[in-house]
Amino acid sequence: MRINPEIKDIPGRWYNIIPDLGFLVPTPMSTSGYPITYNDMDQLSSSAIINQELERKIREISIPREIVSFYANWRPTPLYRAENLEKMLGTSARIFFKDEGANSSGGHEMNTALPQAYYASREKGVKCVVTATGNGEWGAALAIACNYFGLKCKVFMVHSSYEQKPYGRYIMEILGAEVIPSPSQTTRFGQKEIAENPDSNGSIGLALSEAFEDAASRDDTKFAWGTVMNHVLLHQTVIGLEAKNQLKRIGVNPDVLISAVGGGSGFGGLIFPFYPDRGKNTRMIAVETASAPSLAKGRYAYDYSDAKGLSFMLKMYTLGHGFVPPGIRAGDMRYHGISPLISALYRENKIEAKSYLQLQAFEAAITFARTEGMIPSPESAYAIKAVIDEAASCKEKNESKDILFILDANSNLDLSTFKDFADGALKNITSSENEIQEALNHLPAVHSD
Amino acid sequence: MRINPEIKDIPGRWYNIIPDLGFLVPTPMSTSGYPITYNDMDQLSSSAIINQELERKIREISIPREIVSFYANWRPTPLYRAENLEKMLGTSARIFFKDEGANSSGGHEMNTALPQAYYASREKGVKCVVTATGNGEWGAALAIACNYFGLKCKVFMVHSSYEQKPYGRYIMEILGAEVIPSPSQTTRFGQKEIAENPDSNGSIGLALSEAFEDAASRDDTKFAWGTVMNHVLLHQTVIGLEAKNQLKRIGVNPDVLISAVGGGSGFGGLIFPFYPDRGKNTRMIAVETASAPSLAKGRYAYDYSDAKGLSFMLKMYTLGHGFVPPGIRAGDMRYHGISPLISALYRENKIEAKSYLQLQAFEAAITFARTEGMIPSPESAYAIKAVIDEAASCKEKNESKDILFILDANSNLDLSTFKDFADGALKNITSSENEIQEALNHLPAVHSD
Repeated sequence: MRINPEIKDIPGRWYNIIPDLGFLVPTPMSTSGYPITYNDMDQLSSSAIINQELERKIREISIPREIVSFYANWRPTPLYRAENLEKMLGTSARIFFKDEGANSSGGHEMNTALPQAYYASREKGVKCVVTATGNGEWGAALAIACNYFGLKCKVFMVHSSYEQKPYGRYIMEILGAEVIPSPSQTTRFGQKEIAENPDSNGSIGLALSEAFEDAASRDDTKFAWGTVMNHVLLHQTVIGLEAKNQLKRIGVNPDVLISAVGGGSGFGGLIFPFYPDRGKNTRMIAVETASAPSLAKGRYAYDYSDAKGLSFMLKMYTLGHGFVPPGIRAGDMRYHGISPLISALYRENKIEAKSYLQLQAFEAAITFARTEGMIPSPESAYAIKAVIDEAASCKEKNESKDILFILDANSNLDLSTFKDFADGALKNITSSENEIQEALNHLPAVHSD
Repeated sequence: MRINPEIKDIPGRWYNIIPDLGFLVPTPMSTSGYPITYNDMDQLSSSAIINQELERKIREISIPREIVSFYANWRPTPLYRAENLEKMLGTSARIFFKDEGANSSGGHEMNTALPQAYYASREKGVKCVVTATGNGEWGAALAIACNYFGLKCKVFMVHSSYEQKPYGRYIMEILGAEVIPSPSQTTRFGQKEIAENPDSNGSIGLALSEAFEDAASRDDTKFAWGTVMNHVLLHQTVIGLEAKNQLKRIGVNPDVLISAVGGGSGFGGLIFPFYPDRGKNTRMIAVETASAPSLAKGRYAYDYSDAKGLSFMLKMYTLGHGFVPPGIRAGDMRYHGISPLISALYRENKIEAKSYLQLQAFEAAITFARTEGMIPSPESAYAIKAVIDEAASCKEKNESKDILFILDANSNLDLSTFKDFADGALKNITSSENEIQEALNHLPAVHSD
């Protein structure tokens, strides 16, 4: 535990955006086609998590004192002004960023791993938390949180990542987590996949299916979501609440807020707290990869959250639960959908979307690293590309806007990717319109669509 | 630059221990056998650095305002109490640690990289800073610092590390540094080594020789020391000054201070500021690797700081400049000597020394990672082993001591090493008494020995 923690600068409540949206958000649907209830979620999640997921009225949700104490180990996180980058760009804009990479897991995932492990540990008989991951930061964060609360941590890791990005696996195993390459022989869905496709590389959707099955089949195990769901975005709002306060102290109300979106937890975390007080001209920009362009090319529809349709359906911009994105290096951005809350905001024209190819993102990341001295995660690199474009536009129009973005993680587990980029070994890869259409043709049939 | 920096909690002066030692420290000697002067150092170092290196009277040396501002990007660093580790050990001791890994370079090296690049940038005509590194954190820190001050950064990297630990190289190259595997064809010493030994893996001593030659042969280039020298330990005292202040606020004056020692910058940084106010029973413990046991088995003598005798001689505990340590994974601990200041303190019985084998260190590191949620650097792992032993001794004697140690870096660049440890692929390796004796037989002849 940190000595002399700065408790007073850490938010005491998470911010729930739903009451402030000004429109209704479609509820998750059970696989049998009914709006989901507490009981449908009971097998997978602890009661506090279910209540948070379903909460539609209360704006501010108290953070348990124990969690605030753990947050204090690395929070409040620093807010920086990227003055060297501004100078290099010659822009009239001011660029601010919130650094969520400076904790021992390397990313913002700690903000939700802690409460999810905490709540699980308080449920009678729960001894284990299970999850799915594509790379490693999320699993590492959950492993650390489980250690704090005396729980076992089990992680289904996409097989291709397990083999090709071993550092993610190492960090989880060093921390004592059990890491299982997915598809695996430990679940029915995994066995079926291996039987049908012995060389399967897996996908995050399939790893989710295996983790759901594992959690549903054991009374002592709860599932933890790394992103997408309302309660995850809720936990992440400590980022934006802090940033808002930090900016207020220097009299800044940002004009443009930017975050990369994979599942959407970084976006929700940084940007939601600014939503109720946004000005008429405030812009909020979700930056996705052109290789998994849910907002740009997906459909706003109910779809399964996992590849096999084991858990409930979410109304979201989706490329179809069967969509297998090309092997870009930003693992977190390869999910087939985007958080229902962010999808709804986009549907209602409250936020904008942009998409870039990975070479554009990595080029921006190198510029950022050499000016600001921090190597960003591949996900953040997409946000940085959008920031640089906005700053260039400000220069052109001679506008002095204030831009805020989130550096969601550091690049500890992705250094080899940057090396591949420098060596020219990375390519821009996208799916064809036909591949996307094919996946969209297999959305589940839901009457309310 | 950080918004709302905590300037008031960052030391405004570095602490120079020399006036408080109570005994004389032997000065460095030129290779021709005379006590070194300002002019001897002029080619390698900037004037401010030379003055700091030679300063014997002034206790407190002002930190330039620009450097304090840069320090504020990640300082003050957190001080933690390792309560989970204490509980697991069942000890009556309290364990505190200062975390220097939470910055974008991953280690405490940033504390000296910044002032060295800053002072170099203020010398007329200087455009480049050159150094030598075994792994990567030091080079990464210097690359970041050089970018801040508009300098080119050139790093001679031990060839075996360049090949076997590519992540260290990647991080420097991403940051824009020129990384040259040593021995190289770019220097006379490198060419000679390659001619005599075409398969040479290099060593940190040889990389130092190449970097010295490079700096000495170019007017626009200064050399930067990563450790060993007085001015480096001076810069690192921000660590201990902060820790002392943080502990004072909770009324703690540590009984046992522990740091791993390679060159000694972490030890000097954390522990020197506690030296003048130490109690009669305060213990200060330098933990070295049994694979390069300078304090345990070396000789207190003048020796070259590099393998080829290109730069000046230092009076220190040394295994001989020709000593090639076995290939343990804590790269920073493979240097043949220990900082002259720490050597003198040991010689005068002011501090203790301990040594451990690497498997003992890594086992301690895993225990720490699973209780405290941070994977320590291999160097810190040795300190943690000593901490655990001290805590066990407190338990046995039912003593309630306060132990303080430094976590000098995180493990970003060393995850594969931990994996190798988990897989049983690491061994305890030491040099034979004969090998050590052989290297000691080749110490330079200096009349004052």
